Amino acid sequence: MAVIVQKYGGSSVADADAIKRVAKRITEARRAGDDVVVVVSAMGDTTDELIDLAHRITPTPPLREMDILLTAGERISMSLLAMAIANLGVHAQSFTGQQAGVITDDSHGRARIIAVKADRITRALSDGNVAIVAGFQGVNEASNDVTTLGRGGSDTTAVAIAAAIGADVCEIYTDVDGVFTADPRIVPTARKISRISYEEMLDMAASGAKVLNLRCVEYGRRHGVDIHVRSSFSAHTGTLVTDRPRPEGDPMEQPLIAGVAHDRSEAKVTVVGVPDVPGTAARTFEVVAASGVNIDMIVQNVSAAATGLTDISFTLPAADGQQVIEALTSHREEIGYDSLQYDDQIGKLSLIGAGMKSHPGVSAKLFGALRDAGVNIEMISTSEIRVSVVTRADQLDDAVRAVHTAFDLDSDEGEAVVYGGTGR
Amino acid sequence: MAVIVQKYGGSSVADADAIKRVAKRITEARRAGDDVVVVVSAMGDTTDELIDLAHRITPTPPLREMDILLTAGERISMSLLAMAIANLGVHAQSFTGQQAGVITDDSHGRARIIAVKADRITRALSDGNVAIVAGFQGVNEASNDVTTLGRGGSDTTAVAIAAAIGADVCEIYTDVDGVFTADPRIVPTARKISRISYEEMLDMAASGAKVLNLRCVEYGRRHGVDIHVRSSFSAHTGTLVTDRPRPEGDPMEQPLIAGVAHDRSEAKVTVVGVPDVPGTAARTFEVVAASGVNIDMIVQNVSAAATGLTDISFTLPAADGQQVIEALTSHREEIGYDSLQYDDQIGKLSLIGAGMKSHPGVSAKLFGALRDAGVNIEMISTSEIRVSVVTRADQLDDAVRAVHTAFDLDSDEGEAVVYGGTGR
Repeated sequence: MAVIVQKYGGSSVADADAIKRVAKRITEARRAGDDVVVVVSAMGDTTDELIDLAHRITPTPPLREMDILLTAGERISMSLLAMAIANLGVHAQSFTGQQAGVITDDSHGRARIIAVKADRITRALSDGNVAIVAGFQGVNEASNDVTTLGRGGSDTTAVAIAAAIGADVCEIYTDVDGVFTADPRIVPTARKISRISYEEMLDMAASGAKVLNLRCVEYGRRHGVDIHVRSSFSAHTGTLVTDRPRPEGDPMEQPLIAGVAHDRSEAKVTVVGVPDVPGTAARTFEVVAASGVNIDMIVQNVSAAATGLTDISFTLPAADGQQVIEALTSHREEIGYDSLQYDDQIGKLSLIGAGMKSHPGVSAKLFGALRDAGVNIEMISTSEIRVSVVTRADQLDDAVRAVHTAFDLDSDEGEAVVYGGTGR
Repeated sequence: MAVIVQKYGGSSVADADAIKRVAKRITEARRAGDDVVVVVSAMGDTTDELIDLAHRITPTPPLREMDILLTAGERISMSLLAMAIANLGVHAQSFTGQQAGVITDDSHGRARIIAVKADRITRALSDGNVAIVAGFQGVNEASNDVTTLGRGGSDTTAVAIAAAIGADVCEIYTDVDGVFTADPRIVPTARKISRISYEEMLDMAASGAKVLNLRCVEYGRRHGVDIHVRSSFSAHTGTLVTDRPRPEGDPMEQPLIAGVAHDRSEAKVTVVGVPDVPGTAARTFEVVAASGVNIDMIVQNVSAAATGLTDISFTLPAADGQQVIEALTSHREEIGYDSLQYDDQIGKLSLIGAGMKSHPGVSAKLFGALRDAGVNIEMISTSEIRVSVVTRADQLDDAVRAVHTAFDLDSDEGEAVVYGGTGR
């Protein structure tokens, strides 16, 4: 008998029929003898609808009240799911974040889980219930105020509960079969990855693969929770995110490359003509950091000797572009640059694989594949297990396909799959 | 500076514009220097929509889960209302039933408030906030499980909070101007009652006047909370429910009659041909009580001496009719009756007024007015401050108008008002 946490996203519980389908899957696991905890997101577009409603009231909703509002969504989905399970003859009880003991800091709208006091959950399990837990929400310890974890927070709830109760596995159900070597909408021959390390999965998620939330993978790594990403529409095994050694007799070797991720959501800022003296970069990024924006890649060119000036380019979420341009503009004299360039027509391709640590020549092969495909590289950034390049946005798909093929990731089968987000 | 509890029903917060309108009224009270606690129901038809959703999942939703589901409604309305108040520059914080300290027994779906631990509310007030409290909901003490108080429960929440914090008055906002001497849809000349005792109000509510929930009036009487029923669409003074003596110099005397209530929701059951021996009535009503149905009026005719048999008639909510008929049918031999008659085409008229205690002849005058209007009386029941009669349903409106006129309740003005429910 295993202890299993299952997490279902908004698209898996979008309406009454979907909830009944999910309930059936849950009761099957329970009847097979497992203890089952289910973490559930709000139904379909509920969260977006509630946000719209708030913005019809005020352009600047207080964050504390916004969190109370949004958590109504899981309250609805979790109680309906408990009803649907009960209707199939299996005992079920639903629990809010507060009741499930999900304690967070008090950063409304993007709270971090600091503890999970799961005694009600373990008691519900030992009483023979399936325990349904509201994803995405918790309460802060000081004032018992409701908090939310931000987009994708239900994944984190699931892994945190799994860690707290010592679950054997945390299953994240989504609308795709798992994590793929590339987005199958772009690369029809992309393969499902059967097993991937936390580190690789983190780099995949940070590089644009949307199937798993970054913080959930971090939490899983820190607490050693095996995460099984799989489809709520099929019984197929999905992708196991784990650092455990492969079982004896597993014929698979650690592959060189886990996959090719891409990201179309970034923009590039170039600070043109800054003095090439110590401290310029520091000042520039102090200004950017003070604006509260996370940046991604940074490139500084060699300075032209004649002028003593250089350019600094960096990428950031395009949604934050305006904010950073305003911050830099208001500090122009202090930084001492000539001009700013802003470009949101870029794409980022990332090649990820722990295997590349011990294989020289990965970058060279990547650049060669892009050259052969006629794709120009605008920025390059590398880490131990990742190489990322920035291209024109309209060349990104060609780039992903070329690299996927060059590294022998194409499947022979080319099964039709749909690749998308996981709700939250 | 006064401490005021204001309660707004679902129709007062039906959409974003309505919420903004209510927020404006609340901030006006706050800016006038009062401490304000607001109790709010779910928006418009939210509760009914959630019930529908549950029934699309299962015909028999577990009550615990149903309560969690339904309480999502107030979570939405209360946070939106807090946002709308904040948008007008006044500090506001919303609180769930649990956060507001509303402790109930564990009868899911019809819980009773057993304590209100209002320290968070009083703290929010002393910090200068308007406190918004979710109506209709609480938690049971033993397990911190969410409970609901049943239809009309938000009125009870408001009065309970008012009692707990020692508020000067509990204002129940609704879509009518107050309590009227009769339903103005039937009697256009009905007058607004400016002041009424708890006892009269209880009898009005129990006799079909829907403007105030029965349990809320009971709670108010027990804790001495003045209840001011008024319209959220005007600034008019409404109806004050209180037992405090009238202020010195008030020209109004205690009127003979408070008003005429009517009820179209009942049905009549007649148990025909029961033995007229001691214990028959007891057995009959033991069977009815065991079926969990509350009955209203009971009449037993004099037995025909020749047969030793008699008939027992009683009224009950028509919604419970089927259930009682089934219970009586399955105990036919035990009770020993001949047959059952069921009639849901009845109406009930009640004349209510504490003044009638000291005025003989009220019943005679009532019966005379009905006779003159050609209305046949099928059952009669009296208490110290109430006379109720059952008529044919299609004669009820005529009966109400005739009695209203006979007791000089008609207003000279005949202002157009709308009379309806208060949401919950």
